[in-house]
Amino acid sequence: MKHYVSMEDFHAGEIQSVLSLAKEYEKHKIPMQNKEIFAANLFYEPSTRTKSSFEVAERRLGLSVIPFEVNHSSVQKGETLYDTVKTFEAIGCNLLVIRHPETDYYKDLIPSLNIPLINGGDGSGQHPSQCLLDLYTIQKEFGSFKGIKVLIAGDLKHSRVARSNARALSMLGAKVFFYSPAEWVDEELLQWGSFCQIDDILPIVDVAMMLRVQLERHTETGHIDDYHQQYGLTLERAKRMKSGSIIMHPAPVNRDVEIAGPLVESPQSRIFEQMRNGVFVRMAMIDSLLQKWGIGTNENTAKERTMVGW
Amino acid sequence: MKHYVSMEDFHAGEIQSVLSLAKEYEKHKIPMQNKEIFAANLFYEPSTRTKSSFEVAERRLGLSVIPFEVNHSSVQKGETLYDTVKTFEAIGCNLLVIRHPETDYYKDLIPSLNIPLINGGDGSGQHPSQCLLDLYTIQKEFGSFKGIKVLIAGDLKHSRVARSNARALSMLGAKVFFYSPAEWVDEELLQWGSFCQIDDILPIVDVAMMLRVQLERHTETGHIDDYHQQYGLTLERAKRMKSGSIIMHPAPVNRDVEIAGPLVESPQSRIFEQMRNGVFVRMAMIDSLLQKWGIGTNENTAKERTMVGW
Amino acid sequence: MKHYVSMEDFHAGEIQSVLSLAKEYEKHKIPMQNKEIFAANLFYEPSTRTKSSFEVAERRLGLSVIPFEVNHSSVQKGETLYDTVKTFEAIGCNLLVIRHPETDYYKDLIPSLNIPLINGGDGSGQHPSQCLLDLYTIQKEFGSFKGIKVLIAGDLKHSRVARSNARALSMLGAKVFFYSPAEWVDEELLQWGSFCQIDDILPIVDVAMMLRVQLERHTETGHIDDYHQQYGLTLERAKRMKSGSIIMHPAPVNRDVEIAGPLVESPQSRIFEQMRNGVFVRMAMIDSLLQKWGIGTNENTAKERTMVGW
Repeated sequence: MKHYVSMEDFHAGEIQSVLSLAKEYEKHKIPMQNKEIFAANLFYEPSTRTKSSFEVAERRLGLSVIPFEVNHSSVQKGETLYDTVKTFEAIGCNLLVIRHPETDYYKDLIPSLNIPLINGGDGSGQHPSQCLLDLYTIQKEFGSFKGIKVLIAGDLKHSRVARSNARALSMLGAKVFFYSPAEWVDEELLQWGSFCQIDDILPIVDVAMMLRVQLERHTETGHIDDYHQQYGLTLERAKRMKSGSIIMHPAPVNRDVEIAGPLVESPQSRIFEQMRNGVFVRMAMIDSLLQKWGIGTNENTAKERTMVGW
Repeated sequence: MKHYVSMEDFHAGEIQSVLSLAKEYEKHKIPMQNKEIFAANLFYEPSTRTKSSFEVAERRLGLSVIPFEVNHSSVQKGETLYDTVKTFEAIGCNLLVIRHPETDYYKDLIPSLNIPLINGGDGSGQHPSQCLLDLYTIQKEFGSFKGIKVLIAGDLKHSRVARSNARALSMLGAKVFFYSPAEWVDEELLQWGSFCQIDDILPIVDVAMMLRVQLERHTETGHIDDYHQQYGLTLERAKRMKSGSIIMHPAPVNRDVEIAGPLVESPQSRIFEQMRNGVFVRMAMIDSLLQKWGIGTNENTAKERTMVGW
Repeated sequence: MKHYVSMEDFHAGEIQSVLSLAKEYEKHKIPMQNKEIFAANLFYEPSTRTKSSFEVAERRLGLSVIPFEVNHSSVQKGETLYDTVKTFEAIGCNLLVIRHPETDYYKDLIPSLNIPLINGGDGSGQHPSQCLLDLYTIQKEFGSFKGIKVLIAGDLKHSRVARSNARALSMLGAKVFFYSPAEWVDEELLQWGSFCQIDDILPIVDVAMMLRVQLERHTETGHIDDYHQQYGLTLERAKRMKSGSIIMHPAPVNRDVEIAGPLVESPQSRIFEQMRNGVFVRMAMIDSLLQKWGIGTNENTAKERTMVGW
């Protein structure tokens, strides 16, 4: 695997290897790069969490990040993604993280690409760093995936997260359940778990993973008003969850749509913990990918730095 | 004071402590951070001076700055300020500087915030770093505030600067005068000084502090054409100012509206000097705030660096 | 020459001096700055290549780059270029790179500017770093300029590149030819070379330098459809080029308009090589300009760093 573009490419061993490395990073072991390595984060869609989290991860690893804002770039003159990517390669960039609205955008790039690529989200396709940080959060909470019951609920059809998570969780030994409004059911998912009613399943799951309603893509108002009561994680529903169970969400959250506002920062919620974990996981992804390409850390010369607030 | 959000929170001793630290920075003493500290500047309104000045201050102190552009962030997907702020906290940010169009935006944030916040301007509310750099500029010029006469003239009603400066100057022993068009008088200000006519007061003041006409908020044309002659600092008026007196302005300047173009870089003007001072003052604010939180410089290990052009 | 704003200011010796320094950089000699030096890239027009390339060059030299995005700056409040530039000078910036749509924008700035300026492109005027990287690419290929035959073809009238390149190439001993649609002929260019028909000249030139059709400025559709066959470098035309000859383009490329898509990455093309060379050339420009101002590298203390992928 020369690029991290899809969770489909990861087998269980590779997932565990990234999660273990992330755990090392969380325990303060920071192998500083002793070479000058340039990264660029090419985000063709708005993002706060994923982009900033990759940025922090890159800098903690000692990489230098070349800024790129699509609105001020030659994309405005009609430059293609391919030419932009090859430009960054030409000027000396050693790692690319790309988010792009087109599903599978990376398939045309990879044959000509001479530097490693991490997919930061493609249309309704893949989002491997989100999947891995979700897995990390669950493993950290429960120690293992064996027999852990996970409900994935919400917009299953348009979610980059649902498919990757369902497949990986099932592969790692968890039991997956799905719930969504009828129009957002995705038949393909059912190979990794079973569809159920939220009120039936909530009392027995260990994890309620709520997906974001993409309000910016679904503008039919009216629907949204009922959504919370019918399909969302309301305060009442959360009360029926079992002791020790947790709530997850990839964020940004629509408070009082897919999840009741007060639950976001409740003791049961791991939503901000997911973001915190995301930095370690992305450090692990970057570091292990750079090592595959032979441009990573020289362990003998790696230095530890003092980090604040970790 | 765990956050620097409002000049209302500063007593005279705290102001002097920041100004003294800024003076140390101006004299080349740069205590480098020996820890990895991340800052983010979340600017929800356009800014050149304040944003870039904080950026330079942060880097001179050795901090790593995480980029954020509101137009390319999840704010576009409806994410609230609160959730954006908590996201930056979660991914390991150690200091936030925020500018936001909503007055008092910080009041809802502070109860849940676990990292220090500096207010870079809130609506028509506070702008403490601008106030402190104005004070620094006056103290540097006159040695002290006792008996210094300061005219604050222009859009008193919508200015973030007028109120903070009036209160602080009065508290530190200066004598404050106000002048503005009738519709921009702000009664509340009169507790810290007296309203007067610009032509009467200009010959006796030590400082003429001209405020910016916010052309982007006041679109009634016609008014602007007369503004300069009636309310602005014209070349003729400037000639009647006393020897040793100075002209200040928070910038950006509307040349030939609130101030005659040639005055901006005249020997009497401290407008670009204010910007230069702003970097030292912001370094002092950041450093003293980080020290309050226990994440600042370890003085024993602080190293001096050679700075260019200081 | 205190600023690099126009190729008109360069005589042959100065060009060779920058090209030689660039060659040193390409051979891994990286004199690190041992001082804190701040640069800002003020780009008032979209750019990927030039902006990112300057950014990489600055960082490789150890400079700290202050971000600036025109859409989020006080330019939105009507601040002039002059005041923005003087602001960056005031807050401690030591080097400016500016791209601006107004031809000759720099002429009003220079008399008041106390820090070095590199012109990153002005309207239909100059673009010295592009010219120097083109020269570098040709010299690297052919060893010298003496007798090298170069065709410059395309939108001669609006090109920042055509004039600078024609003049410099002619001065350095190359023989220059021009070709363009009738409405884009520029009489002034003919002092440095002769106009000819593309099909006549292609078989004898060493370099075919194709210019970009600025689709964003020329919206008359219909014209573009014929452009490739009539004026562009088609696959058929490329086949008639002589052995050892190369194809150049400043990019971004309009594939199948000024140049056939498959030629962009063909063995004959130096288009991505030009981008790669651009970083070395910009490092050389920055370094030699900083040295002229006495704020550059102290050679005795310069350290070499390991660079990845060079």
